[in-house]
Amino acid sequence: MTPRFDTISFLSDYGISDEFVGVVKSVIRSIAPHVTVVDITHDIRPYDTKGASLALARSVQYLCPGVVLGIVDPGVGTDRRAVAIEVGDGQSFLVGPDNGMLASAVGMVGGATGAVELTNTDYHLPAPGPTFAGRDIFAPAAAHLCAGVPLDALGPRVDPHELVPGIVPLPRDEAGTIIGEILWVDRYGNCQINVDPEAVETLGTRVQLRWTRPREGVRTAVRAATYGDLQPSQVGLVVDSYGLLAVSVARGSASETLGLEAGDEITLVPLDDRDVEPAGDGEAGRGHTSPVTLQPRRPS
Amino acid sequence: MTPRFDTISFLSDYGISDEFVGVVKSVIRSIAPHVTVVDITHDIRPYDTKGASLALARSVQYLCPGVVLGIVDPGVGTDRRAVAIEVGDGQSFLVGPDNGMLASAVGMVGGATGAVELTNTDYHLPAPGPTFAGRDIFAPAAAHLCAGVPLDALGPRVDPHELVPGIVPLPRDEAGTIIGEILWVDRYGNCQINVDPEAVETLGTRVQLRWTRPREGVRTAVRAATYGDLQPSQVGLVVDSYGLLAVSVARGSASETLGLEAGDEITLVPLDDRDVEPAGDGEAGRGHTSPVTLQPRRPS
Amino acid sequence: MTPRFDTISFLSDYGISDEFVGVVKSVIRSIAPHVTVVDITHDIRPYDTKGASLALARSVQYLCPGVVLGIVDPGVGTDRRAVAIEVGDGQSFLVGPDNGMLASAVGMVGGATGAVELTNTDYHLPAPGPTFAGRDIFAPAAAHLCAGVPLDALGPRVDPHELVPGIVPLPRDEAGTIIGEILWVDRYGNCQINVDPEAVETLGTRVQLRWTRPREGVRTAVRAATYGDLQPSQVGLVVDSYGLLAVSVARGSASETLGLEAGDEITLVPLDDRDVEPAGDGEAGRGHTSPVTLQPRRPS
Repeated sequence: MTPRFDTISFLSDYGISDEFVGVVKSVIRSIAPHVTVVDITHDIRPYDTKGASLALARSVQYLCPGVVLGIVDPGVGTDRRAVAIEVGDGQSFLVGPDNGMLASAVGMVGGATGAVELTNTDYHLPAPGPTFAGRDIFAPAAAHLCAGVPLDALGPRVDPHELVPGIVPLPRDEAGTIIGEILWVDRYGNCQINVDPEAVETLGTRVQLRWTRPREGVRTAVRAATYGDLQPSQVGLVVDSYGLLAVSVARGSASETLGLEAGDEITLVPLDDRDVEPAGDGEAGRGHTSPVTLQPRRPS
Repeated sequence: MTPRFDTISFLSDYGISDEFVGVVKSVIRSIAPHVTVVDITHDIRPYDTKGASLALARSVQYLCPGVVLGIVDPGVGTDRRAVAIEVGDGQSFLVGPDNGMLASAVGMVGGATGAVELTNTDYHLPAPGPTFAGRDIFAPAAAHLCAGVPLDALGPRVDPHELVPGIVPLPRDEAGTIIGEILWVDRYGNCQINVDPEAVETLGTRVQLRWTRPREGVRTAVRAATYGDLQPSQVGLVVDSYGLLAVSVARGSASETLGLEAGDEITLVPLDDRDVEPAGDGEAGRGHTSPVTLQPRRPS
Repeated sequence: MTPRFDTISFLSDYGISDEFVGVVKSVIRSIAPHVTVVDITHDIRPYDTKGASLALARSVQYLCPGVVLGIVDPGVGTDRRAVAIEVGDGQSFLVGPDNGMLASAVGMVGGATGAVELTNTDYHLPAPGPTFAGRDIFAPAAAHLCAGVPLDALGPRVDPHELVPGIVPLPRDEAGTIIGEILWVDRYGNCQINVDPEAVETLGTRVQLRWTRPREGVRTAVRAATYGDLQPSQVGLVVDSYGLLAVSVARGSASETLGLEAGDEITLVPLDDRDVEPAGDGEAGRGHTSPVTLQPRRPS
């Protein structure tokens, strides 16, 4: 059999404190010793298929041709399917549970050109107890695909249209504002939101950010080309290196400064540049969050 | 010299925040560039030889032939021996401190067929200060064994019977109950216990769990074939993928729900199915732990 | 083109929760599939160029010939330069931002024999948004150097003397005491200080440690050859495996016991052996820190 691929890109919610990742790699190496495994991350929050889906979507265009092994599997032990998905007519495969976590990545590389359910036990590992799907089903399938085993050997065909779709939160326009969602908080505290930079082109150089969780807050952000254009503690709205909009604080954590987390809703309100009150700048400079006052202010 | 192995499986308590793991891998690569290092985990709690021993035991049957490098070494700087242990008449070697942490793994692959103490300084790395055993003794020994250096070159023979044995906690039967120990809490909060599933075959479909640390608790668990058979928040007693019994909560953390940690004692008490009070189910459904009331209840 | 190196040693502050490290490795593998990436650590505190510099300095003598890729880049988006530095007339290269984080390592291997600024966009990756320097500039440069691309192809020459120097804290002598700084707290809580062991040769077998942050403390330490020579809970001053002085507690964390952190100032005061009060031993044995009493004691 002629080896087909020499790279498996591996993402999971296994963490690195247990031996799961090491065991999966050992299983792969036993079956396909010529393969190099590239870890994308294993620190997806347990069972967070949405976080996994987004991390894969951010990564997929950079991955080497081969097999993407993605395992975040809250439905393990239920009747969710284990699948291998072909993309680009065999240029690469994605292997994992059919729960939507692979869908965004599949879409970004042109969609599925085929899929099978991994039910052929000839390509499973026998388990000492109940099946540990990563070790006993997914890792062997990924390794065998690299080694040159045909997709159809792994199980019966599944119509790609019947695969579980991904869930991608979409922003919505409402009364001249844009209501988006924090997709991801990165290590530096930058908060990526699901808003295309073009959508804010018309909002002016200053944009008001409003949010309600965990408590109400409002803050004026400055649109900036790069992190480097921000003053210390200033809140910025920048285009991040994935081409999406992100809330950032120069050399600080926007997430900590503003109390924002992945999944939080955030509203972008255009500010006419003339409307900016000095207080707005002051707030930004002081580096804290001002609560929204819902009561009308008394005239002073 | 003909290379003997191309894989080193590496486990330690080094963590990944310091550069220890990277330095050890660099030393290995300098001596044996053909070797791939597979990380099992480096997040063993500092000095926790028992945790290391259990992680190795869970992994060993999946590891590739070659050298297992296991370094959790509370006795560094004392007169504990540094050893290389041969298994399967040379099919693989285990390298590390002789403190019992390798013993379970050695036992699981058939026992030691030879051992040497790593005292030949020709195969050590010179150190800028006192010896850093992982970098200066263990990593070079593992790499040289892969490169084909004979075991006897590394130091004098040690009688395998004189190696420090491992400590494996055994469950005990007492008045119809089974008293076990939590061996391991995995990333998802499943609590593996040192009880063979066959031992609970006779206990019926519901089993009462009792524990006393950190405070007294009792809970009714349902025996289930897989995690997927459990209702949300229901406490289950399942056979895990290593073939041992585990306390689990569906899509939740049994460790957090019940307050259990590795090393805790847990007692399994058979419940006649007719004895199950509705309250038992209620507790499970509410997802909290009820304290044991040691005082007799007043008749109501 | 003939491959020049097969190893990239990689250090960053990317952490391993995001996909940054995996994406950088995928980019490297796409350009130079023959290269093995050895992770030094990615858990440098965000933006901590000093911590990165020290970790690199501790590691560099053990790294394989090839490219050292070091990315801690608080100035991303500003006009700080991206550079490749040649050492040993081409024996190895260091690639990263020109902010001083590479300087100590460069110095330890003999200094720079050349440098270029990475401005040739032919060797950059096109970005979907603003540049992600690690992915789009540094990783491609490291990979191309391994693949055999000449240094000069990557950009114009920079005078090595104009590279940003590193900042190495130096100890100072003051009134018979040595005032040093905690350089690094390792996983086990050992506190490495910037003091050469020879400097304390004359201080006797017992040395008083004094510090003022986060609050004032004083403690008697015993000079010991290895960790193994210390009694449990005894505070020791040992030569660590990097050849520097470290404050240690046998099988315990000196950092936690004494409340010391990297960056803290620490003063070493010689104690005449006859001056040691029994209380000093008692303190050590009890394993806690005694505050400095600045008021004169009443004679009892």
